[in-house]
Amino acid sequence: MDHPGGARAVARCDALGVSPYSDAPDMLFRAWMTPAFGATQGRVAEWMAEAGMTVRIDGATNLIGRYDATTPDAPALLIGSHIDSVRDAGRYDGPLGVMLGIECVAALHRSGRRMPFAIEVIAFGDEEGSRFPSAMLTSRALVGDVTAEALAVRDANGVSAAEALAAFSAGDVYTARRDPGSVFAYLEAHIEQGPALDIEGLAVGIVTGIASQLRYRVVIEGMAGHAGTTSMALRRDALAAAAEIVLAVEQAGQNGPADLVATVGRMIVAPNATNVIPGRVGFSIDIRALDGAVRDEAARAIRDAIGRIGAARGMGVTIERTNDLPASLCDPVLVEAMAEAARAEGQPDRRLASGAGHDAMILARLCPTAMLFIACAGGISHNRAEQVAVGDVEIALRVMLRFIEALGFIETPEHRGIGAASDA
Amino acid sequence: MDHPGGARAVARCDALGVSPYSDAPDMLFRAWMTPAFGATQGRVAEWMAEAGMTVRIDGATNLIGRYDATTPDAPALLIGSHIDSVRDAGRYDGPLGVMLGIECVAALHRSGRRMPFAIEVIAFGDEEGSRFPSAMLTSRALVGDVTAEALAVRDANGVSAAEALAAFSAGDVYTARRDPGSVFAYLEAHIEQGPALDIEGLAVGIVTGIASQLRYRVVIEGMAGHAGTTSMALRRDALAAAAEIVLAVEQAGQNGPADLVATVGRMIVAPNATNVIPGRVGFSIDIRALDGAVRDEAARAIRDAIGRIGAARGMGVTIERTNDLPASLCDPVLVEAMAEAARAEGQPDRRLASGAGHDAMILARLCPTAMLFIACAGGISHNRAEQVAVGDVEIALRVMLRFIEALGFIETPEHRGIGAASDA
Repeated sequence: MDHPGGARAVARCDALGVSPYSDAPDMLFRAWMTPAFGATQGRVAEWMAEAGMTVRIDGATNLIGRYDATTPDAPALLIGSHIDSVRDAGRYDGPLGVMLGIECVAALHRSGRRMPFAIEVIAFGDEEGSRFPSAMLTSRALVGDVTAEALAVRDANGVSAAEALAAFSAGDVYTARRDPGSVFAYLEAHIEQGPALDIEGLAVGIVTGIASQLRYRVVIEGMAGHAGTTSMALRRDALAAAAEIVLAVEQAGQNGPADLVATVGRMIVAPNATNVIPGRVGFSIDIRALDGAVRDEAARAIRDAIGRIGAARGMGVTIERTNDLPASLCDPVLVEAMAEAARAEGQPDRRLASGAGHDAMILARLCPTAMLFIACAGGISHNRAEQVAVGDVEIALRVMLRFIEALGFIETPEHRGIGAASDA
Repeated sequence: MDHPGGARAVARCDALGVSPYSDAPDMLFRAWMTPAFGATQGRVAEWMAEAGMTVRIDGATNLIGRYDATTPDAPALLIGSHIDSVRDAGRYDGPLGVMLGIECVAALHRSGRRMPFAIEVIAFGDEEGSRFPSAMLTSRALVGDVTAEALAVRDANGVSAAEALAAFSAGDVYTARRDPGSVFAYLEAHIEQGPALDIEGLAVGIVTGIASQLRYRVVIEGMAGHAGTTSMALRRDALAAAAEIVLAVEQAGQNGPADLVATVGRMIVAPNATNVIPGRVGFSIDIRALDGAVRDEAARAIRDAIGRIGAARGMGVTIERTNDLPASLCDPVLVEAMAEAARAEGQPDRRLASGAGHDAMILARLCPTAMLFIACAGGISHNRAEQVAVGDVEIALRVMLRFIEALGFIETPEHRGIGAASDA
């Protein structure tokens, strides 16, 4: 088998990295339903059609190319990712998964083969939440999790998602909902956005699931005072208390399995003046682990530390939980199938949890999911320095094709194995 | 002796707390050479004249009321403080020292007494540095420490101090310089701006000196990364490193005498997002102690800790010294005279260093200085909640009058004792 498609997938991501596929002249920024977003849909639709797919855009602006099965109306394997980006983005976070889906179909189409299941390559529109204070609205539309309330969010110009949809889309967002019987499974390839594969010199990793997440907003209230005239013994320094807590959060993250992470990423000090003892410090805590119990144990240790430190230093403490997402496990049978496909391509069976969210965590409500991670240089993502190696992408494509091949043979109650591929 | 002047001094500060003596309608803000500043000079000049003084404004905009000695051309005891304020200021930081000077003269004048030295009450114009990125320009003019370069600083509207002086003042700023022979000593009463006297239930404290100060700007460079996808072991979290340093600064401040203080007051985290490991943290360190050696030992311990923590965590570290002020000691003989005056008024001999800067630290280059602190409620200053007790101010005034009385008897080579007071 020869699959030069990996290089083409990378080249197409690169082509989409500049105007007219970016709304900014000097960086890549492609938010949902902007002119650049529309231009990107148009270009990707051409590539889908060239690969042998019939193309449509659903009511939620998702671009979908369908490659039919050996029989009409067969359920589809969805292969996808998103085409929106963060501001000053890299070129591969999202688009690479779409381009690899197209290459999978192109390879089958080139050899004239069809599978017992249809393949639909899907380019989601809103994963990053760059435009509205919300995210994954387009994959949520597929699973029926979009309401009028969810679409009432407004962008920086005061335009609601509902208004933007009415202007951009010809369809009704609620019609994007998929009947579970029409979807066989969901496959997403994505750059790792972390350094593990790169450091270990691996091309790909098999994702076991997307981590559960807890977020807190913490406010520590001490007492502001003149930095020159308030003796150390009389201080109630909110930043010193926050510093102890930052270290307790780090310690809690280190006291667990490798996929447990705990982070203070945001901190605001008030009044934030050189000669004033900080009176008030607000900060975020983000805790993730594949196993929700591991996450919750770390959160408990952190909350205990905050209470202990706050009391010892006479601080007022407010802890608000701002986010609580359960883990989304990839389907165990599909994980094994992916691992087998990797081994068949000479790759180590490296499994890892995803600490970042992906459309796959939404699709898991609809069907079994599988994810393949591709190494990115230095783990750098959400940054113009984002890079992938073409050789790694070639390997990922071969693993995906083997995985698709194997899917036809999977026979479990959950996976409704449909039988082997046949020549079309 | 009956001195209702303490209550009047407080009432006059209150009267100066509102328009037209403030440039802001809803708070007290009186920067140097504004309309409110001019109105305040006019009102204070009236009070000086009523107290028996001849009034002038020097070339540096300092308002000076002179109460002559028993002999003409005798050197003067300067009693003063500043009449400019920070934004949203309290009413007593500065003006109280000027009003108490006026009350001292008023008391002498009421009883028809003159001293062997003249008394000049001086209202400095620029102590806070609220208008220009500079401070104490007006007291610096008295000691000959003002240059064209110092006056080139510009305010928020682009007006230089030199231009503002030319528009506001009839005189030449360089003529404000005082001949050392014309000045006998400098006395400044000021609110403590710290909580020590208030907590101990004391009205006044005798200032031993103004602390030496070091300031640093520190930048810690780690590596930003996705908070979900970068395992704890692979992180270089600049905020966790900064947190260790904040605690080391606090510890260094605690490992010393009561007047040693060390503070991280300002901190900026980048990129400061909930889901991103901080890659860069900048913060300030402010270290003060009366004894420069104590301060320097604390600074050494802090720099060592920064080096150790930075190395252990693989951080890039930049430390820049942004300020280095020596201590300004009050004159030991005058400190003893003030302590004796306090004891004579039934007050404990409570001595303390000033952690904040005052015009006295500039005047110390010209003559022996003495300072008396007055308790302020909760140590709160630079805030509209600033408060003093009238009873404490009455005590301060009586202590100041006893101190002035004693000054005539001081006979040391440094103090050129001039002999006892005589009836005028």
